[in-house]
Amino acid sequence: MSLQGNLLVAQSGGPTPVINASLAGVLSEALNHEDTIPEIYGGLNGIHGILKEDLVDLASESQLTVRALRHTPGAALGTCRYKVKKQSDFDRILQVFEAHNIRYFHYIGGNDSQDTAAKIDAAAKEKGYDLRVIGVPKTIDNDLPVTDHCPGYGSVAKYIATTVREMSLDNEAMGQNDFVSILEVMGRNAGWLAASSVLARRKDRANNDAPHIVLLPEAPFNADAFVNRVLEVLKSNAHCFVVVSEGVQDEAGNYLGVDASSTDAFGHAVLGGAGEYLRTLVEQRIDGVKARSAKLGIAQRAASHLASLTDVDEAFLCGQAAVKAALAGESGKMVVLARIEGKDHYAVKTALAPLGDIANGVKAFPANWIGSDRMSIEIPFIKYAAPLIQGEIVLPFDNGLPRYAQLASARVKRTLEPFAG
Amino acid sequence: MSLQGNLLVAQSGGPTPVINASLAGVLSEALNHEDTIPEIYGGLNGIHGILKEDLVDLASESQLTVRALRHTPGAALGTCRYKVKKQSDFDRILQVFEAHNIRYFHYIGGNDSQDTAAKIDAAAKEKGYDLRVIGVPKTIDNDLPVTDHCPGYGSVAKYIATTVREMSLDNEAMGQNDFVSILEVMGRNAGWLAASSVLARRKDRANNDAPHIVLLPEAPFNADAFVNRVLEVLKSNAHCFVVVSEGVQDEAGNYLGVDASSTDAFGHAVLGGAGEYLRTLVEQRIDGVKARSAKLGIAQRAASHLASLTDVDEAFLCGQAAVKAALAGESGKMVVLARIEGKDHYAVKTALAPLGDIANGVKAFPANWIGSDRMSIEIPFIKYAAPLIQGEIVLPFDNGLPRYAQLASARVKRTLEPFAG
Repeated sequence: MSLQGNLLVAQSGGPTPVINASLAGVLSEALNHEDTIPEIYGGLNGIHGILKEDLVDLASESQLTVRALRHTPGAALGTCRYKVKKQSDFDRILQVFEAHNIRYFHYIGGNDSQDTAAKIDAAAKEKGYDLRVIGVPKTIDNDLPVTDHCPGYGSVAKYIATTVREMSLDNEAMGQNDFVSILEVMGRNAGWLAASSVLARRKDRANNDAPHIVLLPEAPFNADAFVNRVLEVLKSNAHCFVVVSEGVQDEAGNYLGVDASSTDAFGHAVLGGAGEYLRTLVEQRIDGVKARSAKLGIAQRAASHLASLTDVDEAFLCGQAAVKAALAGESGKMVVLARIEGKDHYAVKTALAPLGDIANGVKAFPANWIGSDRMSIEIPFIKYAAPLIQGEIVLPFDNGLPRYAQLASARVKRTLEPFAG
Repeated sequence: MSLQGNLLVAQSGGPTPVINASLAGVLSEALNHEDTIPEIYGGLNGIHGILKEDLVDLASESQLTVRALRHTPGAALGTCRYKVKKQSDFDRILQVFEAHNIRYFHYIGGNDSQDTAAKIDAAAKEKGYDLRVIGVPKTIDNDLPVTDHCPGYGSVAKYIATTVREMSLDNEAMGQNDFVSILEVMGRNAGWLAASSVLARRKDRANNDAPHIVLLPEAPFNADAFVNRVLEVLKSNAHCFVVVSEGVQDEAGNYLGVDASSTDAFGHAVLGGAGEYLRTLVEQRIDGVKARSAKLGIAQRAASHLASLTDVDEAFLCGQAAVKAALAGESGKMVVLARIEGKDHYAVKTALAPLGDIANGVKAFPANWIGSDRMSIEIPFIKYAAPLIQGEIVLPFDNGLPRYAQLASARVKRTLEPFAG
């Protein structure tokens, strides 16, 4: 059980408001086990930096820095979207691990990243290198299977819901008839983030509050039905608030307003044009209607200033749990959050799931939580999501702006030949 | 001097994070003068509601509501973009005033609105109706003449600078070479808001921190120069952060990526396409570069959750000062903020300027604060703007979301025939 060796943690994929809180959780737990884990290293820019032997000494960071990681956006170690494919890459990773006596590896990331973690675990087993690999979940999209929800989701949900409530107060104030306000949010092929916008609704307004229309990737888009629904909303309301996921597709499977030529390193289409598409559609199809769109883009996944305390605490907990599981002899698994049922208040515990069950899986927004009009969200979702946005962090400000952590990043001396790539 | 009569306050134009703080300032001061000002009314949806005799009793609002107005986005009374032109409209306004014995009128708004206030003041004088008209400045664009700065600007500047800092941490984390991040902000034909993004720069990074390029409406856009500057930044930086004002025009005077067919009620072009235009330009002109754009849209002027305490306090102060000036016998003027020079710290006082000097004037971003490359901001701007984003408000949250004020809006009984329009 008590495997002696160093720990390596790295971050991968798109940052979230709490990916650094998970890093802080890993650090804080690992520091408790000096006898078993003499050194705590960070890999810069995910697996790409590990290949290049770009390691930093995390144990030497100040306590204040580690505490500030809990509310710092971005990814303090840097991330990558590098897809490890070649056997020689896995050989190199294990060489780096061996050179620095890495026995504990924690990869904080989404499904692509946990796929990489699973392959490293398999490569180590095949080579007979004693290594404990425990993944830490991360994605604002909330689309990882098995886990009840993902660290990162609650904070972005809180930011989106706050933004919708604020924008709708502005829309109401304008007293302009036939105004359509459109907000495009992230989420890739899962509608969890778009759905979170319904948390903005004030209880005393029920369904007559913004957002009036929510378009999810799980519900194929029909332009006629959409235009009719906008007209219906505008009969009883001066303005109609539409939240659209970047990943919405029409019934033929085409993304709305997407630039099909643009793909990322994983070959995923680069989304982001749905809001402007809808703005044009509405203005062209409905006489006298004015529409405006906003697109939160990267701002939404970096908005730590509105992070959910629940989310921050859970992200930290997942980091701690990963180290504990590895110390207990587990490997090839990812920490998941499980909701404790049967309580009258929200509570979660951590559990473990095989990396293979996580890797490359996608948890779609449940079909029975989508309204029959395919443009609304059913009440059970609110029961699911409301607990995730509770609580606010205490954010220190310097000179009018949030003060965020910056790692000292003392480099660990390289011992290998440079990575040939 | 001591003119006995009721007070009417109304809000106009685009909301700001602090237009309600100015309303709270008017209310709080007016409540101190019960003998002179028996009733305090609000006009719904600006001058448009006043024409329709849509008045509410503000004195009957709860103290808690008035306090919450200080941090509530939107415009609690509603606004309008109605342009009063006809003499019959001014006659009607004075009828409404006479019917409700309105002797104090405060219009919280920008230059178009202060133009309306000036005309009402003139109409009253012409008719011999004793009325005190004192405007309260409001605009996130910061483009009103005479005043050192406008309530609303500091809060949006704080939100934009925070967003740039957060997004740039995300951009840095991605460790992606040749990445261009584009943020489109408001400001119409003035570059004040775009310029505020430079407040995001960390002192220890000097000019090598985001934003790397800032495009203002005051500096005609040249695509070749822009592309060259992006290339230059990408030589020393993995990513290039561009902030672009919605109102940037090319050297021929065309807005970037604008939909020329769309205009608002004042005939202004509807802006908003500059970010996407630049994203496409960069990806087309520079091989291997990835670009992403975000557009804060209405979210930025509604983001009271990141309001500047300095701005909130000054907005409140301007509301109070307007009532005090009117009680002192002034009319036909707007409250302005004047920076007290010669102190080692920032301090402002209120003063008055003739409405005619404000109406329809535009204060452009100073040419000598724009770098010689036309894509950067000079240091004196930072000295000007940094004090305006200082301090944070204490925001109450309910169930994970900011709790904002909602007026009870008890209607004042109408006494006139309906407005014929």
